[in-house]
Amino acid sequence: MNFLALSILNFGVPLSMVCAAIGLAFAFFLIAAVTRAPSGNERMREISAAVQEGARAYLNRQVKTITVIAVVIFILLFIFKDHSTAIGFVIGAFCSLAAGFIGMRVAVLANVRTAQAASVAQLNALRIAFNGGSVTGLLVVGLALLSVSIFYMIAAKLIGSDAAIRSLVGLALGGSLISVFARLGGGIYTKAADVGADLVGKIESGLEEDDPRNPAVIADNVGDNVGDCAGMAADVFETYAVSLVGAILAGLLTLGGNPAAIVYPFVLGGISVLGSICGIAFVNVARGKPAAVLMGAVMINALISAILFWPATRNLFPDGATIAGVLRSPAQLYFASLVGLVMTPVIVALTNYYTSSHFRPVKKIAHASETGHATNIIAGLAAGQHATALPVLFIGLAILVTFHFAGLYGIAVAVMAMLSMAGVIISLDSFGPITDNAGGIAVMAHLPKEIRAVTDELDAVGNTMIAVTKGYAIASAGLAALVLFGSYVEELRAHLTSSLKLATDQFFQFSLQDPKVIVGLFIGGLLPFVFTAFSMDAVGKAAGAVVREVRRQLQTKPGILTGQDRPEYGTCVDIVTKAALREMIVPALLPLFAVVVVAMIKPLGPVVLGGLLVGTIVTGLFLAIAMTSGGAAWDNAKKFIEEGNLGGKGSFAHAAAVTGDTVGDPYKDTAGPAINPMIKVVNILAILIIPIFF
Amino acid sequence: MNFLALSILNFGVPLSMVCAAIGLAFAFFLIAAVTRAPSGNERMREISAAVQEGARAYLNRQVKTITVIAVVIFILLFIFKDHSTAIGFVIGAFCSLAAGFIGMRVAVLANVRTAQAASVAQLNALRIAFNGGSVTGLLVVGLALLSVSIFYMIAAKLIGSDAAIRSLVGLALGGSLISVFARLGGGIYTKAADVGADLVGKIESGLEEDDPRNPAVIADNVGDNVGDCAGMAADVFETYAVSLVGAILAGLLTLGGNPAAIVYPFVLGGISVLGSICGIAFVNVARGKPAAVLMGAVMINALISAILFWPATRNLFPDGATIAGVLRSPAQLYFASLVGLVMTPVIVALTNYYTSSHFRPVKKIAHASETGHATNIIAGLAAGQHATALPVLFIGLAILVTFHFAGLYGIAVAVMAMLSMAGVIISLDSFGPITDNAGGIAVMAHLPKEIRAVTDELDAVGNTMIAVTKGYAIASAGLAALVLFGSYVEELRAHLTSSLKLATDQFFQFSLQDPKVIVGLFIGGLLPFVFTAFSMDAVGKAAGAVVREVRRQLQTKPGILTGQDRPEYGTCVDIVTKAALREMIVPALLPLFAVVVVAMIKPLGPVVLGGLLVGTIVTGLFLAIAMTSGGAAWDNAKKFIEEGNLGGKGSFAHAAAVTGDTVGDPYKDTAGPAINPMIKVVNILAILIIPIFF
Repeated sequence: MNFLALSILNFGVPLSMVCAAIGLAFAFFLIAAVTRAPSGNERMREISAAVQEGARAYLNRQVKTITVIAVVIFILLFIFKDHSTAIGFVIGAFCSLAAGFIGMRVAVLANVRTAQAASVAQLNALRIAFNGGSVTGLLVVGLALLSVSIFYMIAAKLIGSDAAIRSLVGLALGGSLISVFARLGGGIYTKAADVGADLVGKIESGLEEDDPRNPAVIADNVGDNVGDCAGMAADVFETYAVSLVGAILAGLLTLGGNPAAIVYPFVLGGISVLGSICGIAFVNVARGKPAAVLMGAVMINALISAILFWPATRNLFPDGATIAGVLRSPAQLYFASLVGLVMTPVIVALTNYYTSSHFRPVKKIAHASETGHATNIIAGLAAGQHATALPVLFIGLAILVTFHFAGLYGIAVAVMAMLSMAGVIISLDSFGPITDNAGGIAVMAHLPKEIRAVTDELDAVGNTMIAVTKGYAIASAGLAALVLFGSYVEELRAHLTSSLKLATDQFFQFSLQDPKVIVGLFIGGLLPFVFTAFSMDAVGKAAGAVVREVRRQLQTKPGILTGQDRPEYGTCVDIVTKAALREMIVPALLPLFAVVVVAMIKPLGPVVLGGLLVGTIVTGLFLAIAMTSGGAAWDNAKKFIEEGNLGGKGSFAHAAAVTGDTVGDPYKDTAGPAINPMIKVVNILAILIIPIFF
Repeated sequence: MNFLALSILNFGVPLSMVCAAIGLAFAFFLIAAVTRAPSGNERMREISAAVQEGARAYLNRQVKTITVIAVVIFILLFIFKDHSTAIGFVIGAFCSLAAGFIGMRVAVLANVRTAQAASVAQLNALRIAFNGGSVTGLLVVGLALLSVSIFYMIAAKLIGSDAAIRSLVGLALGGSLISVFARLGGGIYTKAADVGADLVGKIESGLEEDDPRNPAVIADNVGDNVGDCAGMAADVFETYAVSLVGAILAGLLTLGGNPAAIVYPFVLGGISVLGSICGIAFVNVARGKPAAVLMGAVMINALISAILFWPATRNLFPDGATIAGVLRSPAQLYFASLVGLVMTPVIVALTNYYTSSHFRPVKKIAHASETGHATNIIAGLAAGQHATALPVLFIGLAILVTFHFAGLYGIAVAVMAMLSMAGVIISLDSFGPITDNAGGIAVMAHLPKEIRAVTDELDAVGNTMIAVTKGYAIASAGLAALVLFGSYVEELRAHLTSSLKLATDQFFQFSLQDPKVIVGLFIGGLLPFVFTAFSMDAVGKAAGAVVREVRRQLQTKPGILTGQDRPEYGTCVDIVTKAALREMIVPALLPLFAVVVVAMIKPLGPVVLGGLLVGTIVTGLFLAIAMTSGGAAWDNAKKFIEEGNLGGKGSFAHAAAVTGDTVGDPYKDTAGPAINPMIKVVNILAILIIPIFF
């Protein structure tokens, strides 16, 4: 073991903190760049302010609602678990909330400036929108890396490394739980407002998107910020933090006290921040088609990571590592990380095939629209289900390969490598909502039509990016959840062995021949179905309320449609805010409830719970992919028709395509993405409650 | 062991054959009763003949298509397996086809007579429709019981009992495979014609259901017969035969050569034929509300079975039975059978809650229709997913309880007990399509409107019955598939032990910690998603072809709508026939293909295959329940509005509800029910190929 190896082992965590700090510094540099850009005319700033006010009001109320639940869980953890886990929970919850605020704040800053920049040149608009997204990406990744590493370092000093890692599970729970709420609340908000605005505004009254005469238009724009930006940022914080914690935990549990196992995930994360910065910088200097430039950024990030991962791996594990009793070479660990890096472009390409209007699936939906609403819906539902095939098979392949290289830890390393690109990936993801909002501001501020055309073109690119990054998020969530399940099994074994409740290993087989495992798979498989059903119900209910309110306004003030009366935007904002906060509670708490009930009922116990965890992952993965891809395909089928194909706007096919897009909205922006944090919160909670119930 | 016990043991199988023969005799008695009823006027007979001709032509072509595939599989089995399995396959396939023909033939007989009877009194119509269904029920159950018992008795004489039971798996495969084709082909046919007829006829041209001016109207009615009647009959044959074979196989593999284990499932089946006859007789003498009379028949069947099961169990297992090393009392086996009997009414009640317009879920969809197509669809999708919760939890409970009583054999006994009621249950299920067709004939033959009102009322009852019996079919399919999976594991162990490929038991844990199991769960979980996606695509494609053809006819002959030109019914029938047969191939072969590929690829092998089997059961169960219940809920929400609620027919809400109903059609009548045979065919094939690949 040479000097370099020793120093990486000892200073790996601080080094990753330095990388995170560099990322944050770069983010602040970008914020300055975005803020420096002109923020448009009076009317644009006014609209932007109204949207910001609505978004901030919503987030504040959301914080209050969530805080009540978080305090209850904190107290429970404080009493039934240990203090450090409870404190970790608070930190995770706080950072997840902070990520949401950051996402919203930056988006609002960038929206109006993108609209203004679009009046100059497309490239300017692209850069501002992308940099806005990059700020969120870097801040969120930096926040996740810093919060986990600082907490770990302090806790390790106070209570030792092992206990510190177990307390990190509390941090993961805090992050995940808040993220479930943020994704659900924001998702319900944005889609209820969107669907409501579309149903009456577009379909019944023939208004264009973002027409200021539509009373729900401000609510719709607020929704984009609290759902797509704030919700997404909280989600990514969660994904990153939980995967990091999962990898550390898997390292602790399967590498038998090898300290490098703990440091390695941090180092991978730190390296990739540097890669992300290079990718983001590339977008700011490159010229070319927006989609190509953005994909270039991803490739640069992957390449830099792939190059730097090797020396890091070789120096941390100079003699390899013994994982589950087998000695693995540094090359094997490195290959596992490479699988993670390769997964990103592969999943991106696969999702792109299913959701881009250049390929058969979306065209099929568009053609099905020609025969009506129902055939459009049938085609879209089928397309979403088809879209599960290749990604799931590929995820399965990745599991086999990484497990072959380095067991459970190999899967964990691959997830961490995959997520290490989150900085750039979020930049792509945030890009869409920002340009979408910019377009909205342009229309509402009566800017020339050409500007809307510029933002629309960027929005179309952003749309594909969002779909694609959702596939990435779900694939990583599935793998991360599997790592957590593996940790559940190991932790359960460790607990029962140390508490002398267990004599034989037989108990821990979680065999499919055991009816308890099958019942667990059934209960777990049920959770995503019921969870998403509640989420869609919530959107339907809240959207119905918006529709009724808009209809009421249009009836009582017919002058709104002629432009003589001013719509009451505020009542719509208010209605959606209340509905979203009310409706998110049941689905968000349902998974927690299920885990605790199964754990509490003695004849069920740890084996059924194990089955439950895997069952949730299996059906959750399928539903999440089917919903997000199906929704995106519907959306792009509509856009394909709006581009003038199959009769174009206003045709019979277009009306059917709008219906499909509206159904796809809660699919892809509420229910589907909320499955990600849900399958993880279930697995994390199970790990946490082992010593309480078993 | 007394004399009675000995004689049941020795004569149990022949006795059950006698019961089956009594059932067949009763069926012929009912056929005579139905045939005696007047068959209406000239025009009605003419229409009936046209429908019958179309249905027969379709089934004949279907037989040809399937025969090619069946011959290939027969040859493969003959070469790679043994001759008796190959012969069993042919018998199973032939009986399944025969069941389909019987179902179609009887339905066509009963349709026109029900229409005629409706002009006399509702009760007469109810009895003819129900007796038509009963004939199918008794014939199919009798056919299944007889084919399995005769094959078993002859094969046992020739090659010994154990080998005979293993050859029965071939019979099960034949039945299942044909059933997948029949369900899919018939399902695609009926829904493509229905959706096509509705989209242009109802929505674009404003024609009523079954208006003779609609060029697709005959195809639509043919579809009801080949899908709902022939497809369903083949499906039930399969369900019954496979569950019987599964129970026998589980008995052989887990009861260590106790001959009573083999005889017991036959005896349960035989007893229930008697119970079914009593239930059917009850409907023919009882008076009262249709729904109450039908439920009374189910209760009588259950009660008679519950009473007679006990002496049969006690006499077959006077000293109990040793199952998987534990001695179980006769009472424990009896309790397992009781669980099966109780499951039927429970699942029926649960499904009824989710799909009947008297309860909240359907009303919610109806109310969501008021805000448009999209909110109707969202509400329906959510309702279908919600509908999985209670049935799945209850199935899980039944698994735990029956396993507790008698291990895997306990689950098998429960399934057999549950299916023993199939005779009466099918009577309920066939009831709906027969009254639906009767209504169609009444409208097409220009009978007075009152007659349509009578058949419509019966159709509404039939509609709920169909939904409810689908829940029953899926629950039993899930349990039967689990029994088959258990048999796969036991058979694999037996094979590898006897071929000395296996030293330790460790290999067979199918542990969730094994990544191969997880990957198997993923691949298996994928199958129902892709299978149903293909099925829906097929309906969409075929329906699109119908729409284009109907539009063409209406454009080239405008006189059709005014009644001056005669529509070309034949071209529509032809188009759907070809489309259905073409589109059923890929989805039907997909599961077979997946099983063989996973078995062939060495790094995957038996463990991944085991995971695949369970994965298919898990997601298959959820999708099947969600699709059939969701579809039925959409249907009844539309009917609820058509009854005059929320604006009634022609309102904005009604248009949205029609869209939902149309989306629900392939859900509940094509994709959803086809999952049942699919999850079984996968499990049966896996058992069959063990000695070939492992």
